[in-house]
Amino acid sequence: MKIRTPSPDAISHLHALIGEAGPPADGVAPRYLAEPRDRYHGRAATVLRPRDTGEVAAIVGYCQGAGIGVIPYSGGTGLVGGQLVEDGPLPVILSLERMDRIRSVSAEDNAMVVEAGAILADVQAAAAEANRLFPLSLAAEGSARIGGNLATNAGGVQVLRYGTARELCLGIEAVLPDGSVHHGLKLLRKDNTGYDLRHLLIGAEGTLGVITAAALKLFPRPAETLTAMIAVPDPAAAVALLGRLRDRLGDGISGFELIGRLGLRFLAEHFPERRDPLESDPEWRVLMEIGAPPETGLAARAEAALAEAFEAGLATDGVLASSQAQAQAMWAIRETIPEANRLVGAIASHDIAVPIGSIAEFIERGRAAIAAVDPALRINCFGHIGDGNLHYNLFPPEGATKADFVHRREAGTAALHELAVSLGGTYSAEHGIGRAKLADLQRFGDPAKLAAMRAIKQALDPAGVMNPGAVLPAAVPDAPAEAGGAAAG
Amino acid sequence: MKIRTPSPDAISHLHALIGEAGPPADGVAPRYLAEPRDRYHGRAATVLRPRDTGEVAAIVGYCQGAGIGVIPYSGGTGLVGGQLVEDGPLPVILSLERMDRIRSVSAEDNAMVVEAGAILADVQAAAAEANRLFPLSLAAEGSARIGGNLATNAGGVQVLRYGTARELCLGIEAVLPDGSVHHGLKLLRKDNTGYDLRHLLIGAEGTLGVITAAALKLFPRPAETLTAMIAVPDPAAAVALLGRLRDRLGDGISGFELIGRLGLRFLAEHFPERRDPLESDPEWRVLMEIGAPPETGLAARAEAALAEAFEAGLATDGVLASSQAQAQAMWAIRETIPEANRLVGAIASHDIAVPIGSIAEFIERGRAAIAAVDPALRINCFGHIGDGNLHYNLFPPEGATKADFVHRREAGTAALHELAVSLGGTYSAEHGIGRAKLADLQRFGDPAKLAAMRAIKQALDPAGVMNPGAVLPAAVPDAPAEAGGAAAG
Repeated sequence: MKIRTPSPDAISHLHALIGEAGPPADGVAPRYLAEPRDRYHGRAATVLRPRDTGEVAAIVGYCQGAGIGVIPYSGGTGLVGGQLVEDGPLPVILSLERMDRIRSVSAEDNAMVVEAGAILADVQAAAAEANRLFPLSLAAEGSARIGGNLATNAGGVQVLRYGTARELCLGIEAVLPDGSVHHGLKLLRKDNTGYDLRHLLIGAEGTLGVITAAALKLFPRPAETLTAMIAVPDPAAAVALLGRLRDRLGDGISGFELIGRLGLRFLAEHFPERRDPLESDPEWRVLMEIGAPPETGLAARAEAALAEAFEAGLATDGVLASSQAQAQAMWAIRETIPEANRLVGAIASHDIAVPIGSIAEFIERGRAAIAAVDPALRINCFGHIGDGNLHYNLFPPEGATKADFVHRREAGTAALHELAVSLGGTYSAEHGIGRAKLADLQRFGDPAKLAAMRAIKQALDPAGVMNPGAVLPAAVPDAPAEAGGAAAG
Repeated sequence: MKIRTPSPDAISHLHALIGEAGPPADGVAPRYLAEPRDRYHGRAATVLRPRDTGEVAAIVGYCQGAGIGVIPYSGGTGLVGGQLVEDGPLPVILSLERMDRIRSVSAEDNAMVVEAGAILADVQAAAAEANRLFPLSLAAEGSARIGGNLATNAGGVQVLRYGTARELCLGIEAVLPDGSVHHGLKLLRKDNTGYDLRHLLIGAEGTLGVITAAALKLFPRPAETLTAMIAVPDPAAAVALLGRLRDRLGDGISGFELIGRLGLRFLAEHFPERRDPLESDPEWRVLMEIGAPPETGLAARAEAALAEAFEAGLATDGVLASSQAQAQAMWAIRETIPEANRLVGAIASHDIAVPIGSIAEFIERGRAAIAAVDPALRINCFGHIGDGNLHYNLFPPEGATKADFVHRREAGTAALHELAVSLGGTYSAEHGIGRAKLADLQRFGDPAKLAAMRAIKQALDPAGVMNPGAVLPAAVPDAPAEAGGAAAG
């Protein structure tokens, strides 16, 4: 069976399943059909906002039977079009926003249980209230929801120490494509009882089911934290500096972000209140954060390690934050760069990763590859260098407009993705495939893996209703007829 | 299609695929058919020992077509019969022992690539040679092989800090049930490009394919390590002590093992050279290990934290190891307990986990549940309390023999598994399902998960040849005929 646009009867039936008379008179609110970069524009038959897992199961079960596409919708902050359908039959949007409860927090178990619609910042705050840390942290945390973070295996700025969303999840509750509910909210560190459905659904971007709740790992909050901004001679020195600091300071380094000079230029232009703490205006710098338990002499150890790094030529300038406010100001620089990029108008954004030992080579060869596409293009290279993950974005020359150079996007992106893959890396480190990188996955993906993915998708979602067209190409509709008529309604 | 015993022609063909004239004249060596506790006894048509991934692919592809069961065989140290087929059609054993190379170690990338047949201790040693730590550590590390560690998602004594085998694996190379090769040996911390086949195969116990190589995470080696044995008043105090030490010392605590008095009695009986460093002969004790970067004053911080714990009544006696030799002697006590258990003769062994906050309740109620089965039974309770994971083993009364009490196994095990699950826990924390816990998985498993597991197994292994009868019940054979005759041979 292939999916079809739902009939008016089917839409009414779906709203009735969640106790509503019908769809809102003014149609689908525009916020469900837009995304941060304004590159994709969604379409939908209606938006369903269930209040509990039973309602999610009823919706999904009905849609599986009727052949209606279901788009699980979380915070809407995804950057690869995973939450937006631009063509084909109209789907229904299943928004988890009403399921936003923190179900429980246990400091003793170092775990919490939250519903999928909980906003990431609220999850962090609930953990902090119990004197624990939930370390997932990213620029969109004020509006991103945990279900989407898990469905896309979000990364962010603390992966180096704590791992990606996948590694922070102990268990899930999920509605599978047939409408059955998988109850897997265990708080266990060890549980070897059959195939790990959790890890299959995490990162599947809503194509194998809907995560409705999650058990999350918590950590002790570091008693002391040290933040520093350090100018480095080049990216290779940044990698060497990280290696040296890890040898000296252990794995307490939770953030290690590379920032290029152009990012600071963009900030100066659009956010002049974000003042650069470094006077030397270096071409490359890193922002680092280190946490430690109490009474380990963190500041003295870090200063000694940095002094050695200066002597070894791995650092040329630097500022240690002397207050919480100064640390926040440093992080604000890093976290405002994506917004500044948007205001300047990137013609292409990337989310590559390579083994950390190949970062410097990627940056050098990437610059050459882009110059070959068009020497006028400007590069803003920044990102999570500690994870080997860079956001490597292309801009028109100063004074020119995005519209004049957007035709370079395809060639620029192809060159960078090719380069990353050739270095044993990836063209999607933390954003996922969505609909933006479907062709990349088909091109670069391991054929055996792609065949297994198709087999798994077919086995769990035979009608192909879950987020059709994301991650894997959608099946072609059989016929233009509407779904959910007499037979299914 | 259902699997069948291979014909002599099929066996010859399989050996020819790996350049051999035929099976050895003296049949299948007994070591492939036994397991550490001597509870299961395997059968096989032949043993195939391929030299490379291409040979593994050829074997698996042929068996998929011919309907011949394939048992991936690693170190043979599994405790749940996952590597042994006791009935049904004869399978072939596919041993990875000849594929034991360390392919590469990169200190800069904090990663290494090893073949599946590499012995765990050799993997650890290769990491150490590059001044890095591969933290997976368990009693059988001298003979267990990394492929089996991954297929069963092994745990061990450093999970508290570093995670299970699953969390230590960056990527895999694997032969899927259709004989295709999945090339996924990336060294990346972040790679969101489709369904995570790695995590599906890890923990699938060879039922969804054969892991042939793995990319593994490495860590900085702790500059300082502190080992201590601490007497505690009861298990609740052990859990409270861990919480307090984590608050004071951070997450550098890599091991936290509970040991009950009966374990020490068994050691005194069978390994008198393992001297108890505590004079107070406590009913309960913990063995702990803490690592730290250089110059953090670890010993002073640990002593202060322990002094507070003594004052709070969480500890009653204790010894800090003052040398590497003393630390090793403490660990030898913990690591010899399983062997002492075997010599004494356990009538039942368990591998339960509960959320750590429920550990004390499990131990108390478990004791009552076993007393209700038979008040004469003795309990040796020990294990990885920091992970909520206990090995809770039952013994006949002193002077009695195992044979006289083995009829209590079923009732004792049922009571303990029931109790663990009722506390939100598991009946298999780190050993897996194998064939020993098939009925438990069917009984306690989430129905939606079980249905998804069957669908995935059917989708990836339609002939059901990969480790048939492990994890999921084997299909019933169609007919007694032999496989691999004219059509397939």
